[in-house]
Amino acid sequence: MLNILNNRRTIRKYTEDDISEELLNELLHASCRASTTGNMQVYSIVETRDPEMKKKLAPCHFNQAMVEDAPVVLTFCADFNRFNKWCRHRKAEPGYDNFLSFMTAAIDAIIVAQTLCVAAESKGLGICYLGTTTYMAQQIIDILELPAGVVPVTTITLGWPAEKPEQIDRLPLEAVLHKEKYCDYSEHEIDRFYSDKEARKDSEQFIEENNKETLAQVFTEVRYKKEDNVTFSKLLLDVLKKQGFMNN
Amino acid sequence: MLNILNNRRTIRKYTEDDISEELLNELLHASCRASTTGNMQVYSIVETRDPEMKKKLAPCHFNQAMVEDAPVVLTFCADFNRFNKWCRHRKAEPGYDNFLSFMTAAIDAIIVAQTLCVAAESKGLGICYLGTTTYMAQQIIDILELPAGVVPVTTITLGWPAEKPEQIDRLPLEAVLHKEKYCDYSEHEIDRFYSDKEARKDSEQFIEENNKETLAQVFTEVRYKKEDNVTFSKLLLDVLKKQGFMNN
Repeated sequence: MLNILNNRRTIRKYTEDDISEELLNELLHASCRASTTGNMQVYSIVETRDPEMKKKLAPCHFNQAMVEDAPVVLTFCADFNRFNKWCRHRKAEPGYDNFLSFMTAAIDAIIVAQTLCVAAESKGLGICYLGTTTYMAQQIIDILELPAGVVPVTTITLGWPAEKPEQIDRLPLEAVLHKEKYCDYSEHEIDRFYSDKEARKDSEQFIEENNKETLAQVFTEVRYKKEDNVTFSKLLLDVLKKQGFMNN
Repeated sequence: MLNILNNRRTIRKYTEDDISEELLNELLHASCRASTTGNMQVYSIVETRDPEMKKKLAPCHFNQAMVEDAPVVLTFCADFNRFNKWCRHRKAEPGYDNFLSFMTAAIDAIIVAQTLCVAAESKGLGICYLGTTTYMAQQIIDILELPAGVVPVTTITLGWPAEKPEQIDRLPLEAVLHKEKYCDYSEHEIDRFYSDKEARKDSEQFIEENNKETLAQVFTEVRYKKEDNVTFSKLLLDVLKKQGFMNN
């Protein structure tokens, strides 16, 4: 089991082979045994197999090829709609139209998503997370017809691997782990923790291709820019309001 | 692997046995191979073993006994502080002081947390999530000395099981899975999907103990009340502002 986790890599290229309904249901069923707040299961999963639907979703994910190439695309949503309906049909007035409830449901959804990823990888499938989901939530809501109380929080493409990319780097464990209290980072520690990453050939390539001076600049000036983050923050907060999660 | 997922249950009672530093590091190391946005690893994990620190954390988790009883408590944090420091030391100006960046980091943190849970359970350990983390984020920040750019999003207690509780119910898979588009729930479907849960002996007991008419009322009037959700929503949004994540 730890072997599977230790040897995994994100897979962006898939064979033409399908994933049977039976296998997918087996994986989803096992994933839904994961922890969920108060056993409320305040999440929903939208399964996309139809090529037409994938085509519609692709622009929401900046037209990354995985969306149309993968046999299955799964959109994981924070969902209080079902629970609210149950309450209302049972003489109970739900009070879940607020930010805390959104966070609770988002955490529930991510826990299921990651369990599904581990389950899928244990069967030889490859996965890729699409972080674009929170950027383009409104477009995804429109395409998947998500009602109030439902917000997409992440998307996974799923398929049989047609590549075996090199495993990419991670920071040393001590860089992300704190004992008893958070030990803030000195400049010397930052140098030490990031030195392996910065020394990699692909990092040098990134810097050169983007015509930057440092790898960090590739992140701040190309990949994850402040202006985009600010724009998408506003859009996401608007979505939370519109979907009924900001009545605090 | 699916067996482990299918047979798991949340464990709240632990033996006196410790978890070796070596085993914990092995689990954490494997967990950090999980997907992370742009390979930024915008999370941190705070490991609590000191009984004095557990005692301080306990009230943040409504004094649930697991916090002091578990050999290890792990607090998973959304963390842009380390990444921001790296950027600033590398002539790059980070633009991650906004809500989207908080969501990105929170998702990263939950993905690692859930991978750790699966890894731990594969070794026979038991885990319990503490949803109270988002309610009491400010108190946890003070105790763990989390700087700006860091927000706790979930906590896990970890130990060797001293109980084997009955597995609790889940909704049928079709209740949480939508094909191609979200299919909203009719009253009839709500009845059907929730009937098994409502027929359980422990549900009846819950209703009786709390002197309510329906199981849903136990949720809305006792366990997850609107007034608490509103209070904790405001507190959590204040924390995001204070930790520097609301400059949208």
